[in-house]
Amino acid sequence: MNAEIITIGDEILIGQTIDTNSAWLGQKLNAQGVDVHQITSIHDDKSAIISALDEAGSRSQLVLITGGLGPTKDDITKTTLTEYFEDHLVIVPEVLIGIEAYFARTGRPMLEVNRQQAALPSKCRVIINQRGTASGMWFEKDGAVFISMPGVPHEMKGLMDDEILGLIAERFPGPPIFHRTIMTQGVGESFLAQKIADWETQLRSQGLTLAYLPSPGIVKLRITAKGFDAVQARSMIEEKIQSFMPLAGEHVFGFDDQTLEQVIGSYLQQMGKTLSIAESCTGGAIAAGIVAIAGSSDYFAGGVTAYSYDMKETILGVNHHDLLTHGAVSSVIAEQMATGIRRLAKSDFAIATTGIAGPTGGLPEKPVGTVWIAVSSAHRTFSKKYQFGHNRARNIEMTTNSALFMLLQEIIRQRV
Amino acid sequence: MNAEIITIGDEILIGQTIDTNSAWLGQKLNAQGVDVHQITSIHDDKSAIISALDEAGSRSQLVLITGGLGPTKDDITKTTLTEYFEDHLVIVPEVLIGIEAYFARTGRPMLEVNRQQAALPSKCRVIINQRGTASGMWFEKDGAVFISMPGVPHEMKGLMDDEILGLIAERFPGPPIFHRTIMTQGVGESFLAQKIADWETQLRSQGLTLAYLPSPGIVKLRITAKGFDAVQARSMIEEKIQSFMPLAGEHVFGFDDQTLEQVIGSYLQQMGKTLSIAESCTGGAIAAGIVAIAGSSDYFAGGVTAYSYDMKETILGVNHHDLLTHGAVSSVIAEQMATGIRRLAKSDFAIATTGIAGPTGGLPEKPVGTVWIAVSSAHRTFSKKYQFGHNRARNIEMTTNSALFMLLQEIIRQRV
Repeated sequence: MNAEIITIGDEILIGQTIDTNSAWLGQKLNAQGVDVHQITSIHDDKSAIISALDEAGSRSQLVLITGGLGPTKDDITKTTLTEYFEDHLVIVPEVLIGIEAYFARTGRPMLEVNRQQAALPSKCRVIINQRGTASGMWFEKDGAVFISMPGVPHEMKGLMDDEILGLIAERFPGPPIFHRTIMTQGVGESFLAQKIADWETQLRSQGLTLAYLPSPGIVKLRITAKGFDAVQARSMIEEKIQSFMPLAGEHVFGFDDQTLEQVIGSYLQQMGKTLSIAESCTGGAIAAGIVAIAGSSDYFAGGVTAYSYDMKETILGVNHHDLLTHGAVSSVIAEQMATGIRRLAKSDFAIATTGIAGPTGGLPEKPVGTVWIAVSSAHRTFSKKYQFGHNRARNIEMTTNSALFMLLQEIIRQRV
Repeated sequence: MNAEIITIGDEILIGQTIDTNSAWLGQKLNAQGVDVHQITSIHDDKSAIISALDEAGSRSQLVLITGGLGPTKDDITKTTLTEYFEDHLVIVPEVLIGIEAYFARTGRPMLEVNRQQAALPSKCRVIINQRGTASGMWFEKDGAVFISMPGVPHEMKGLMDDEILGLIAERFPGPPIFHRTIMTQGVGESFLAQKIADWETQLRSQGLTLAYLPSPGIVKLRITAKGFDAVQARSMIEEKIQSFMPLAGEHVFGFDDQTLEQVIGSYLQQMGKTLSIAESCTGGAIAAGIVAIAGSSDYFAGGVTAYSYDMKETILGVNHHDLLTHGAVSSVIAEQMATGIRRLAKSDFAIATTGIAGPTGGLPEKPVGTVWIAVSSAHRTFSKKYQFGHNRARNIEMTTNSALFMLLQEIIRQRV
């Protein structure tokens, strides 16, 4: 079954906003066995919208439309769809109540333009938006389904996850599809591909497929079984995961889109242990990732971003002489930061990062991208050096993932 | 003059890669007065490529194509273009020499598939790629220009900056276009739209256009002047910005895609002042945003993520009795956290956040989304209560932006 995505919004065409919605939709639909074979981005312009709808409807049975549903004048998707499907707008009481509740909750005044967001085409199936004021709309025409959603990512994702993905699966039942994802850290895509080349060839010969999904420091491997019955698919995939582990299991931290923060959080919760973090070059990014997990207050004591020498000394108790002798980016200082924060926060585990994120600040013996990461527990404190690249954002992300992976390995070692 | 972008590659449609090339191209072309009115992403599939070329050529005078130029079997863009333009491939000696030099430089063995990358359509204008082995190709057909480029971002950008943008400007001299963006915080899109309704009507009557670009806590307003000469466009836009300020200037923190972190950083740098941060519910996210700016070590002393009562007391010096009486989410504690971190880090300014990010942990008198933010300087310490929603990630983002905006206002107040 063929699907297309149409994104509507001037901001994408002039490059002010990168279209991340389409990639998210592509992943979700693909996981459900729906092939997205075109993504089209167009202006908030009536004739452009109409011809995109015509073309997409002639090629595909499913057309997902995002954007252009805001309350302001430049958002014309709703009125254009109403005209395209030869319909008229009616106030939908259930939606109006939701919008009123939304404004009551946020304490902001509700305006006539907001009330008008409850006016929706009479013939469409309305999909209630719990996270905002623009509803989803499901239209059918000549056998094709058109679904319009707001462009605000968390609203669109909420509508898809809560309702639309399920409705699509009902409306377009296809061959069953099963996925499992192996999450790896600290190994490059092509190096991993080489390590598992024979395993991959065998996987494909069994009728399974494999996709590599890389991001800085992390490679997800998605195994897909399409057209097999559930029991067979699950056992084939399970067998492949078993045979993967001896080849590259040392890089695996989880499965099925688990994050490092989630895996670490669930171990700490099970063990009743706590964590603290001392950050220099990552500047709070590791702590922010830990705190992003709901319930992290059970195991996260806190963290210190010690950016200056002074804060490293006064708060973390780093030795002044060692700072001068070894420099802040060194094994000694990383380990002192980790033991310092662990003592201060009275936690069971601690991690510390110190490095040169760039783009400036590099030295001949410590170029940009040099990072030391330390892990400390009651049992031992140790550190490891990493050499990343020149891109500041990427270096911070690589350091974050590497530190979390080092911590996870130590937690698992102590748990056994 | 109308332009379109066609991106070719399975990885974009299955959501493995986010298409950042199109946004970059959109910005560059738009700045040059070229309106990108459609972006189309399609599979590495011959019939999909041919129909995309047909459709784009019928609508637009300029078609930019990225992707599908690699040496492997699934990359079919070059052969498809050769067929589409009724041409044949010839080895281009200059390109072959470049490819040989490229492999000599990287020390990798050169294969026959790499040599074949020097085989290019005889009628196209070849644009030499200094950064890789896939050349750019410039075709003309029925008055439309088609330019094919590799999908690797730094190769594509290099070709555009070095040659193609200049060639486009020569080939299509057009009306100039100017944009300015007003960055606002703490005001909803529709509330803002109502405040500036008359201003917006007048703006449109002058032939300018306006777009609202919302993200959590922030609304960007983009003013566009097209077809006016440079002096007139700039003065019209400047006049509109001047008349905007009395209407909603209290929400403005910057212009032209500046971030709060950038604006704050440049003020602190100018003033020679420093900042520290004490975070509870934001868990390090504010510090991470500050540190993401290169050069932030000049003004950022450090931060503490004090998640437990114990860390709030021992590190930040929050009063034990006040914690028990008022609870961690209170004006008193927010202010003690701010003064505590400011003293500890010896900084000029400090901010502190404490709140219930959710989804659990709410109380009848302090529901999920309740947040206190404090700002402290040598002059004064004060705090403000916010009531956000139920989404943890969004609450953290809203708190981050609100805290930075409170800080910025205080910095500006003291600077005057």
